[in-house]
Amino acid sequence: MGSEDPAAVPNCVFCAIVSGSRPAHFVLDRERCVAFLDSRPLFPGHVLLVPRKHVATLVDLGVEDIGPFMQGAQALCAAIERGLGAEGTFVAVNNRVSQSVPHLHMHVVPRSRGDGLRGFFWPRKVYASDLEAASFAERIRAALR
Amino acid sequence: MGSEDPAAVPNCVFCAIVSGSRPAHFVLDRERCVAFLDSRPLFPGHVLLVPRKHVATLVDLGVEDIGPFMQGAQALCAAIERGLGAEGTFVAVNNRVSQSVPHLHMHVVPRSRGDGLRGFFWPRKVYASDLEAASFAERIRAALR
Repeated sequence: MGSEDPAAVPNCVFCAIVSGSRPAHFVLDRERCVAFLDSRPLFPGHVLLVPRKHVATLVDLGVEDIGPFMQGAQALCAAIERGLGAEGTFVAVNNRVSQSVPHLHMHVVPRSRGDGLRGFFWPRKVYASDLEAASFAERIRAALR
Repeated sequence: MGSEDPAAVPNCVFCAIVSGSRPAHFVLDRERCVAFLDSRPLFPGHVLLVPRKHVATLVDLGVEDIGPFMQGAQALCAAIERGLGAEGTFVAVNNRVSQSVPHLHMHVVPRSRGDGLRGFFWPRKVYASDLEAASFAERIRAALR
């Protein structure tokens, strides 16, 4: 870290944390990314992994950054299990909708069986028909072409 | 795909989908990963990205696979917004706890403002003190060393 980062975006809370001008409990400090405690955790030890460079969403992370960023996520998952005795982790990114800060951040959250979160996460639906499912798949494929 | 993959794990539903022996609505078909519709979506167009090679969790994905895997995730995020008119995406991985199938899968879910999911996701807590937060950060840092 260092407070002179020319790429920092004014008024971005995560750029301020990366540059050191706003305090945080850091857990990871790497060339391309840092991680620190979320101050309002789902569970204690919930961390946020952010790229040093300000990008808005996961899609905006460059090809040279995505690998190192995710290696940071892998290290955090392993460390949270080992260091906190968690039985697993929940890893999540909100892109745009529900994204509180428009600087990419990946949540890595310690999980334990019976922690009460399971029921929250997956209010599942079903497709009305296989045809309906096929049409959604085709719309995504078309956008990928 | 091809049903002769020697690395497929017996009785793994995602290995069966990768090998073509179990049907799915595919949206992405790349060298190291595939993506298909989740049959019980949070919202229609919810997809699962899985590595072709059977690995249990995000931590188990090799350094040669993590970049291409996440480039697949980026492509899906962009395509789901463009193809389905979503206003954002939710990207998530359950490692071990809440993981229904022990073959790494990344959920990519279309989101729209007012879709009703926001309140579900983040039952936030606070640390009792800055000292408590510092102790959690130190335990994670120690595990990273």
